[in-house]
Amino acid sequence: MVRLRASLATRAEAIEHAIDRLLAPVKGGEARLIDAMRYATLGGGKRLRGYLVAEVASMFGVDGAAAYRVAASVEMLHAYSLVHDDLPAMDDDDLRRGQPSTHRKFDEATAILAGDALQTMSFGILADPATHSDAGVRIELVTALAAASGAAGMVGGQMIDMEGEGRSLSLEEVARLHALKTGCLIRYSAEAGAILGQARADVRERIAAYGRDLGAAFQVADDVLDATASAEELGKTAGKDEAAGKSTYVALLGVEGAAREARRLAEQAKAHLDIFGSEADRLRDLVNYVVERRN
Amino acid sequence: MVRLRASLATRAEAIEHAIDRLLAPVKGGEARLIDAMRYATLGGGKRLRGYLVAEVASMFGVDGAAAYRVAASVEMLHAYSLVHDDLPAMDDDDLRRGQPSTHRKFDEATAILAGDALQTMSFGILADPATHSDAGVRIELVTALAAASGAAGMVGGQMIDMEGEGRSLSLEEVARLHALKTGCLIRYSAEAGAILGQARADVRERIAAYGRDLGAAFQVADDVLDATASAEELGKTAGKDEAAGKSTYVALLGVEGAAREARRLAEQAKAHLDIFGSEADRLRDLVNYVVERRN
Repeated sequence: MVRLRASLATRAEAIEHAIDRLLAPVKGGEARLIDAMRYATLGGGKRLRGYLVAEVASMFGVDGAAAYRVAASVEMLHAYSLVHDDLPAMDDDDLRRGQPSTHRKFDEATAILAGDALQTMSFGILADPATHSDAGVRIELVTALAAASGAAGMVGGQMIDMEGEGRSLSLEEVARLHALKTGCLIRYSAEAGAILGQARADVRERIAAYGRDLGAAFQVADDVLDATASAEELGKTAGKDEAAGKSTYVALLGVEGAAREARRLAEQAKAHLDIFGSEADRLRDLVNYVVERRN
Repeated sequence: MVRLRASLATRAEAIEHAIDRLLAPVKGGEARLIDAMRYATLGGGKRLRGYLVAEVASMFGVDGAAAYRVAASVEMLHAYSLVHDDLPAMDDDDLRRGQPSTHRKFDEATAILAGDALQTMSFGILADPATHSDAGVRIELVTALAAASGAAGMVGGQMIDMEGEGRSLSLEEVARLHALKTGCLIRYSAEAGAILGQARADVRERIAAYGRDLGAAFQVADDVLDATASAEELGKTAGKDEAAGKSTYVALLGVEGAAREARRLAEQAKAHLDIFGSEADRLRDLVNYVVERRN
């Protein structure tokens, strides 16, 4: 785990640096837009998604610069979803990672536009020749990101989440909600590393399955955290799920049952890595980290 | 002009049909999202952007199905920008094409998500092999759309527009605002037809320049319309620009001066088509239509 923490820190710094270069400040009337995009993407977060891209890509011998571009792209996509999710009409959250959310720091219009432009930019980076010399690889990345983040993925999950507020969802419904809302993008992140590495179809499928189950474990662990951790530990408002009348794994299974489910999913995620040797050890450690973290 | 109107109507119907098939209704918690996306994209509009894609593509012998996919994609991108633009935190518009805007028909959260998912879908359609067999062509379309619609294009222009409210902009500033806010996407639409047609670089450049000047003429004409037409003619609230304290061509040049500027830009747009024969006649007619329309 010490090994993983060092790797997480190193890659998080490289991702931060990549975003900083891709999103250089500008002058003129659009300066405020770029400032808001930088505010929403720079200065922290675990960079779980970007880490997955870079770590999987490195397993296939892909050079750092290309991998960090794709990592920066998925972190921008993720950041756009958080900026829009925090808006008053959505989750109405004033805090994000212990700081004012983007619409509180700037204003609602700027936050909407910053999220919009972050989404565009994440696709633009993937399509750029600097990401990979082979147009076929770039188009696969674009296709996979669009599938993971659109109406049949992340945004669809957010819609189901809003629709489900105030009524009880079944365990199956909650699992589907999260598979779409957070799972698809985490799965994509792992798969993107394999796409960059031009991995064989069956190997790519294993990596994607690992990402899918890691994402599921992550979400169940997140529900447990939301119910048990303090706002200080979380860096965001705690107990929001319950207050919003959202159906959670904890509401359905209890804290102990949900923690057990997170561990079960974690084992399932690691099983997909059986075809790899020690080169996948950090991906295995990441699963443990995700279900044991306190923030 | 009769010839153009028939062509506009035919292509608008084909675009409508393409969107309808790409955005099939679904069941489940995300049904509302798809319904809102359909509401925002189907049932009208001039389809100027989609028309440009299809008309230019047909000049280069591209088959209809591929062209209408790209046309549907740009109309989805355009629709997303309108949905977000109409939000209370942005222009706060209750009407769009004479109907309730998407957040009035559904709710704000659904409108935000529908806009987000429409943007994603517009990129996903371009990346799909059904659009073109050559991955290189698809990646050029994605690259061009990302450049036209992101922080250095449409969304950047929207930010400048918000920033400029309540203060006087110079003619140069207004021209730059519109070149970004609406010009980039209209330019892209023409260029996308040439990309699909795998036109030579210099020919593609001519088409792009035509699109750029057509977009500029369109916007100046739009300012004239906003100042002179009734809400009934426009199908949206009239005189909004002046009420919002926005700097317009009419405020800077007067109604007559702005109308003259629109005609100047129209001539400039047509001049780029000099290398073409009668196959570009509808593109020429389109320029006249854009500056003479009453809605």
